[in-house]
Amino acid sequence: MTERPDDAARATGMPAGDAIEGGGVASPRGFRAAGVASGIKREGLDLALIVSDRPASVAGMFTSNRVRAAPVRWCEGIVAAGAARAIVANSGNANACNGERGERDAERMAEAAARALGLPVEQVLVASTGVIGHPLPIETIERALPAAVAALGVDGRAAAEAIMTTDTRPKSAARVVHRGGRRVTIGGIAKGAGMIAPDLVSPDSVSTDTVSPDTVSPDTVFPDSVVRDNAPPGPPHATMLLFLTTDASLAPAALQAALEEAMAVSLNAITVDGDTSTNDTALLLANGAAGGEPLGGEALDAFTRALTGLALELALEIVRDGEGATRLIRIDVTGAPSRADAKRVAMTVANSPLVKTAFSAGEPNWGRLLMAVGRSGVAVDPERLSVHIGGLRIVERGLGAGADLEALRAAMSGPEAEVAIDLGLGAASFTAWTCDLSEEYVRINAHYLT
Amino acid sequence: MTERPDDAARATGMPAGDAIEGGGVASPRGFRAAGVASGIKREGLDLALIVSDRPASVAGMFTSNRVRAAPVRWCEGIVAAGAARAIVANSGNANACNGERGERDAERMAEAAARALGLPVEQVLVASTGVIGHPLPIETIERALPAAVAALGVDGRAAAEAIMTTDTRPKSAARVVHRGGRRVTIGGIAKGAGMIAPDLVSPDSVSTDTVSPDTVSPDTVFPDSVVRDNAPPGPPHATMLLFLTTDASLAPAALQAALEEAMAVSLNAITVDGDTSTNDTALLLANGAAGGEPLGGEALDAFTRALTGLALELALEIVRDGEGATRLIRIDVTGAPSRADAKRVAMTVANSPLVKTAFSAGEPNWGRLLMAVGRSGVAVDPERLSVHIGGLRIVERGLGAGADLEALRAAMSGPEAEVAIDLGLGAASFTAWTCDLSEEYVRINAHYLT
Repeated sequence: MTERPDDAARATGMPAGDAIEGGGVASPRGFRAAGVASGIKREGLDLALIVSDRPASVAGMFTSNRVRAAPVRWCEGIVAAGAARAIVANSGNANACNGERGERDAERMAEAAARALGLPVEQVLVASTGVIGHPLPIETIERALPAAVAALGVDGRAAAEAIMTTDTRPKSAARVVHRGGRRVTIGGIAKGAGMIAPDLVSPDSVSTDTVSPDTVSPDTVFPDSVVRDNAPPGPPHATMLLFLTTDASLAPAALQAALEEAMAVSLNAITVDGDTSTNDTALLLANGAAGGEPLGGEALDAFTRALTGLALELALEIVRDGEGATRLIRIDVTGAPSRADAKRVAMTVANSPLVKTAFSAGEPNWGRLLMAVGRSGVAVDPERLSVHIGGLRIVERGLGAGADLEALRAAMSGPEAEVAIDLGLGAASFTAWTCDLSEEYVRINAHYLT
Repeated sequence: MTERPDDAARATGMPAGDAIEGGGVASPRGFRAAGVASGIKREGLDLALIVSDRPASVAGMFTSNRVRAAPVRWCEGIVAAGAARAIVANSGNANACNGERGERDAERMAEAAARALGLPVEQVLVASTGVIGHPLPIETIERALPAAVAALGVDGRAAAEAIMTTDTRPKSAARVVHRGGRRVTIGGIAKGAGMIAPDLVSPDSVSTDTVSPDTVSPDTVFPDSVVRDNAPPGPPHATMLLFLTTDASLAPAALQAALEEAMAVSLNAITVDGDTSTNDTALLLANGAAGGEPLGGEALDAFTRALTGLALELALEIVRDGEGATRLIRIDVTGAPSRADAKRVAMTVANSPLVKTAFSAGEPNWGRLLMAVGRSGVAVDPERLSVHIGGLRIVERGLGAGADLEALRAAMSGPEAEVAIDLGLGAASFTAWTCDLSEEYVRINAHYLT
């Protein structure tokens, strides 16, 4: 696990707390976590549990994809209520596009965890990641939950491993921030490698009118047996899941605001392939075990900075571990008329197949960069565009700037590369992060059955 | 060359004229064409010329990319005036992002053709395709133009070959439509294989305020020598070029309207990689050599149908020849609230890397299809979604429909595949065309120098 608090500091211009070596979701006081092998996957850990020993405020943000998995809908209701004690999450099956059965299974998963933990069901958040359109093996999960409860401890590593799909490594981090004599800890785990372009939104900005299971009459739902027996197989879809914990004390509204601020420059600023998942979920529990009054003022600002740094650290781990990725690419867009315009340009460049393949080869193909800027839909002026790669000027006012080719290749060929695009139009900026597109991405996503 | 008038008929619901075997841009009366090797490319034809023996109306549509190549700007002025006699086009260099020198070179290219043909310069359209940001070798073109004029003839195949970049084969077609005792011929050539997601617009819908060379003061433009000597190399970018000719008689405004109608369901409905080029150009010359009054009423409708069929035929040749493509994928979206919504869904599915890799493997991964529909930004209702692949129902009201897996794989594994997505919300529809994403696409675009 690479600790890079400086990425966050650079991206946000703010210090981001002190990293805890080997820390994770159980680092904050009062939290325990576990990861067990339930049998959903043929091998390996596949069921994670995170529990607070006392009541906690909860914040959450979820995919803006209109096709949303059952656990996302379950969590939205809990986040709206503002309190939760536990998160239960499985890999190997996304419980998406499973109709009424999916809704029931998400609730049964929460019920099983609540029963094993002695908690009310409405305090248990649920998340799933894996194949879409296969019924969740709910009995398998129900059978395994007592063992997961028995395995709860202060080492969060097994939980991080249990939510992996095409990830090649677990993603876990924690940070400490000191304010007013108090020591507040924030921890987190994340997963994701493909189908990664999170566009997380808070529950109240997503209408649930059209996705309620109540709107489907029973005769329009296919029998479980048909779905179970004949549904075509699929690969382990790589949704983004992010579970954050803190021993700070915060009211739900303040917690939600802090999460929104953190997500805007971290998970909502990354892409691997531009495909936004049906299951993307970010959850944040704050149990107040650090003591004191709910955070406000400068202490809340410091907390939000540390939360942002931690979220960005985990977000960049996802991009580094992107399917087939050989390098992380930072794209800074400055001089934009608005932040929305800057983001649109940055994300268009970050998702351009021709830009991403050029970075795979380490080739300073600035024509592709200008092409992608120009097709973003933002009213750029080509003759004001300047581009630097790794600090080397390559385009000045829309023209090739005669940079040193070998130096540029070197700047594009390491584990990290930086592109700076100045639109020359205004004062707004945005930083996005992507990875290169390699043949291995195609192999992972085309030939997963062979 | 594959002739598939039925694609157009299916897409438009209209007959589309009779195909001329081996026809092309010089099939209509009064047109001649040539393709020669000028030396821009190390080998092969690289300079095309198309000429009408009499005055012709002209229509044109051009890339909506804000970074537009010099020849695009040159053509916009001519299309606005409405009359032209010739098209000169080169491959091997896009003449894009070359500043004032690029503007001068586009004009010099027109002047050289005009001189060799004895035409006014303002009657000569110019197009370029190839690497971005390298100065056009204009003297090479100037030297070759007399030979191109000498080579003019009624066989358009050499012209089709001369505009190829990463294309593996020339793209050429012609059709005949009979109306009111007259025989009208329409011919065309096209090129494109990557950087293909045309979003063509008519000149008056693109503001030229910010892209005039007059807005650059001389001291902001780098000397030619710097650009020439130190510009990093690049691959042959694969812009879309489409040159259409007809011996019908049409006024410029009617011709432009016919071209817009044809492009909306052909070139503006295809994608290879979602990357819209700086040079995309569609030109249509109508010289009236078939005789009679300018087309109107039912005759104009018949002409537009045939033009649409021809344009779609050439558009599909581009997608079939997409970089690394092994199959053509037709995506029909129906039941949309509006045509714009239907197009947005269809294009999001068509550009999804996860959908395209699934088609590369021939795997009926319907979860990825629903994911792409859901992330399109259109307010779809998951529980109203139905999907068929190759006529086989795979998703019904948002749930897996228990289709036969082997039959689905067969439907996805041929040279053509069909996806039908019914949103269940309205009466609007759109058909888009894409290809699969294979490892070969990455190889072509990452390792072009090795």
